[in-house]
Amino acid sequence: MDKGRLEAFSDGVIAVIITIMVLEMHVPHAPTLQALVEVGPVFLCYVLSFIYIGIYWNNHHHMLHAAQHVNGAVLWANLHLLFWLSLIPFTTGWMGENHFAAIPTALYGVVMLMAAIAYWILQRTLVKAQGPGSLLSKAIGSDVKGKLSPLIYLIAIASVFASPKIADALYAAVALMWLVPDRRIESKFTH
Amino acid sequence: MDKGRLEAFSDGVIAVIITIMVLEMHVPHAPTLQALVEVGPVFLCYVLSFIYIGIYWNNHHHMLHAAQHVNGAVLWANLHLLFWLSLIPFTTGWMGENHFAAIPTALYGVVMLMAAIAYWILQRTLVKAQGPGSLLSKAIGSDVKGKLSPLIYLIAIASVFASPKIADALYAAVALMWLVPDRRIESKFTH
Amino acid sequence: MDKGRLEAFSDGVIAVIITIMVLEMHVPHAPTLQALVEVGPVFLCYVLSFIYIGIYWNNHHHMLHAAQHVNGAVLWANLHLLFWLSLIPFTTGWMGENHFAAIPTALYGVVMLMAAIAYWILQRTLVKAQGPGSLLSKAIGSDVKGKLSPLIYLIAIASVFASPKIADALYAAVALMWLVPDRRIESKFTH
Amino acid sequence: MDKGRLEAFSDGVIAVIITIMVLEMHVPHAPTLQALVEVGPVFLCYVLSFIYIGIYWNNHHHMLHAAQHVNGAVLWANLHLLFWLSLIPFTTGWMGENHFAAIPTALYGVVMLMAAIAYWILQRTLVKAQGPGSLLSKAIGSDVKGKLSPLIYLIAIASVFASPKIADALYAAVALMWLVPDRRIESKFTH
Repeated sequence: MDKGRLEAFSDGVIAVIITIMVLEMHVPHAPTLQALVEVGPVFLCYVLSFIYIGIYWNNHHHMLHAAQHVNGAVLWANLHLLFWLSLIPFTTGWMGENHFAAIPTALYGVVMLMAAIAYWILQRTLVKAQGPGSLLSKAIGSDVKGKLSPLIYLIAIASVFASPKIADALYAAVALMWLVPDRRIESKFTH
Repeated sequence: MDKGRLEAFSDGVIAVIITIMVLEMHVPHAPTLQALVEVGPVFLCYVLSFIYIGIYWNNHHHMLHAAQHVNGAVLWANLHLLFWLSLIPFTTGWMGENHFAAIPTALYGVVMLMAAIAYWILQRTLVKAQGPGSLLSKAIGSDVKGKLSPLIYLIAIASVFASPKIADALYAAVALMWLVPDRRIESKFTH
Repeated sequence: MDKGRLEAFSDGVIAVIITIMVLEMHVPHAPTLQALVEVGPVFLCYVLSFIYIGIYWNNHHHMLHAAQHVNGAVLWANLHLLFWLSLIPFTTGWMGENHFAAIPTALYGVVMLMAAIAYWILQRTLVKAQGPGSLLSKAIGSDVKGKLSPLIYLIAIASVFASPKIADALYAAVALMWLVPDRRIESKFTH
Repeated sequence: MDKGRLEAFSDGVIAVIITIMVLEMHVPHAPTLQALVEVGPVFLCYVLSFIYIGIYWNNHHHMLHAAQHVNGAVLWANLHLLFWLSLIPFTTGWMGENHFAAIPTALYGVVMLMAAIAYWILQRTLVKAQGPGSLLSKAIGSDVKGKLSPLIYLIAIASVFASPKIADALYAAVALMWLVPDRRIESKFTH
C-alpha cells in the first residue's frame, strides 16, 4: 500500500485544519485598538492550537518517515486521529470566544485527550504493521512524553472546576514539553 | 497521462471537504453544557459524514492504486465524483441543524446515492481504461457492497416519509458495512 | 526549476477554490422543500463554476504535462491565473444569491474573461520557456477554443443589458464547448 | 529528514491561506454597482495580500529548492513563518473593511514585519543546516531586499499616525520591489 498518499492526504487535512482555524478569529468591525484587544483571547487560543497542530504534524512526519509498511488498519487509525484534530478549530473558537470559561476549557482538554489517544492507537497500529524488531519501534522507545500527555490532560480537565487557569497552564505546559526538540526518532537515524 | 496528479488533486479536494465540514458546526455563544448539547445533532451528522468521506478516500486510494492507465474520461468521471462529495458539507449541515427532519434527511440520502453512482461510473471508466483482463477488474470482483449501497440509499430515502429515524439507521448501516475491512483489492495484491 | 511543486501548489489552490465555493451555498434554516428550492439559483451557479474550474484544472494538467521547462515568469503567470480563479467563489455567490441579475451576471463574465486571458498568458509564457519547436507548442496547435472563449465572454457581458439569460446561456455554451473531449494535446502524445 | 513533505505541507498551508482570504470579501446582498464598489477596499487589500503571499511562496520555493538538508529546527522555523502568514487573511479583512483606517493598517504592517523576520529566521536555520560553503548561502548572497523590507515595514507602521496612505504606498512599494524578478538564486543555478 502507498505510504506517500497517506502522508499527502494527512498533510492536506492538517494544512486545512491549521488554516481555517483563523476563520474563528472573526474580523472586528471597529478599527480600534479596543476591538483588537477583544480578539485577544481567541488569538491566544489560536496560538496554542497552532502549536499543538504543528507538534502533531511534526511527530506524524517523523513517525511515518520511520515506517515502511502501511495497511488498511493504519489508514483508519490515521483517519481517526485526523477526526479529533479536525475538532480543534471548534474547541479553539469556543474556548477563545468565552474567555477561557470552565466548560469550553474542559472540552478543549477532552478533544486533546482524544487526539493523544488516537495518536497512540495510530502508533501501535503502525508498529504492528512493521513487524517485530522494526526501526520504528526502536525509534519510539519508552515514549515518556506520549504517556505523560494524556495524564496531564486528565488532570487539566478535572482542574477546570477549581479554576480554568490551572487547565490553561497545563495545556501550555504540554505544548512546551513537546516543543523541546524530540531527538528520539531523529537520533536513531543519525547514528 | 499522469495518475499522480489526479490522486494529488483528489486528495486535496477530499481533504478540504472533510475539514470545512466542521465549519458547519457553528461555535455556540454561551459557555454552557446546554449550548454544547444543542450542537449534538450537527456533531452526529459530522461524525457520519466524516466516516463516509473517509470510506470514499480509502476506496479511491485502493482503486487508483490498482489502476495503471488514466485518460480524459477518467479525469471527468473523477471530477463528477468530487462534485457530489463536495455537497456533503451542505447536506450534513442542513440535516444536523434541523435535527434529522424528513426533507433534509432525504436530501442527505440523495447526495449519497449520487456519490455512489458517480463512484460506480468512475470505476467503470477506470476499468475500461485499463483494457481487458486488468488487475483492477479482478480486484473489484463482484463488488457486492458497491451494488448494495445505492439500493439501501433508495430504501432510506423512501423510508423518510414513514420515519427519518429508519433512514438515519440505514445510513449508519451502510457506513458500518464499508468500515468492515474490505479485503477485496488488498488481498489480490498480497496473493 | 521544479515543475512538480508548481503543479502541487496549483492543485492545492484549485482544490480549495472548487471546495470553499460550496460555503457560499448557505445552509437554509427551515427543513422544507421550499427552503431548498430557494437555494436553487446558487446551486445552478455552483454547478456551472464547478465545471469551469474542472475544465481549468484539466487543461492546466494537460498543458503542464506537455511542458518540460518552468521559469520565474511561468510561476508568476500561473499565480496570475490562480488569482482570477480565486474570485470565482465570490462571483458565483453574488450571481446566485441575486438570481442571475444583470450586474452580477456581467461581473461573472468579466472574471471568466480575465481568467481566460490569464490562461492564454500562461500558455504563451510556457511555450516561450520551452524554446522553439517544442512538444507543447505543437500540442496547443491553433487553439480555436482558447481564442473563441474570450470573444463569447465579451458578447455575454454586453448582452447582459439586453437580458442576463442570454449571458447565462453563453456561459453554459462555453462550458459545454470545453467539456467535449479536447483531444488536441492528448492525441499528440498518442501518435 | 524529508524535504518533500515539508514543501508539500507548506504548499498546502499557503494554498489554503491565499484562497480562504477571498471569504473575507463578503458577497454583497444587492445586485448593484454601488454594492460592488463598496467591496472595493477589501478587494484592493485582497490583491495586495495575494501578491505578498505569492512572493512568499515563490521565495520559499526557490530557497528550499537550493537547500539539501532539513532538520527539526527547520521544521519549526517553517511553522513559525506559516503562523504569521496565516494571520494575513485576518489583517487583510480588517484593513479592507475599515477602508485603510490607521490601526488596521498598522496591524497589517506588524504582521508583515513578523512574517519577514520569520522568513529571515527560516533562511538562517536552513543555511546553518546545509553546513559551510553551501549552494544556498551563495545563492542568498547579500540579500538586500530581505534586509530592506523589515525597515520599510517599520517606517510604514510609524507613518500610520501621520497618514495611513503613506503606509499603504510603502506596502505596495515593497510588493513591487519583490515582484521585479529576483534572479539571485535562479542565476546561481543557470551558471
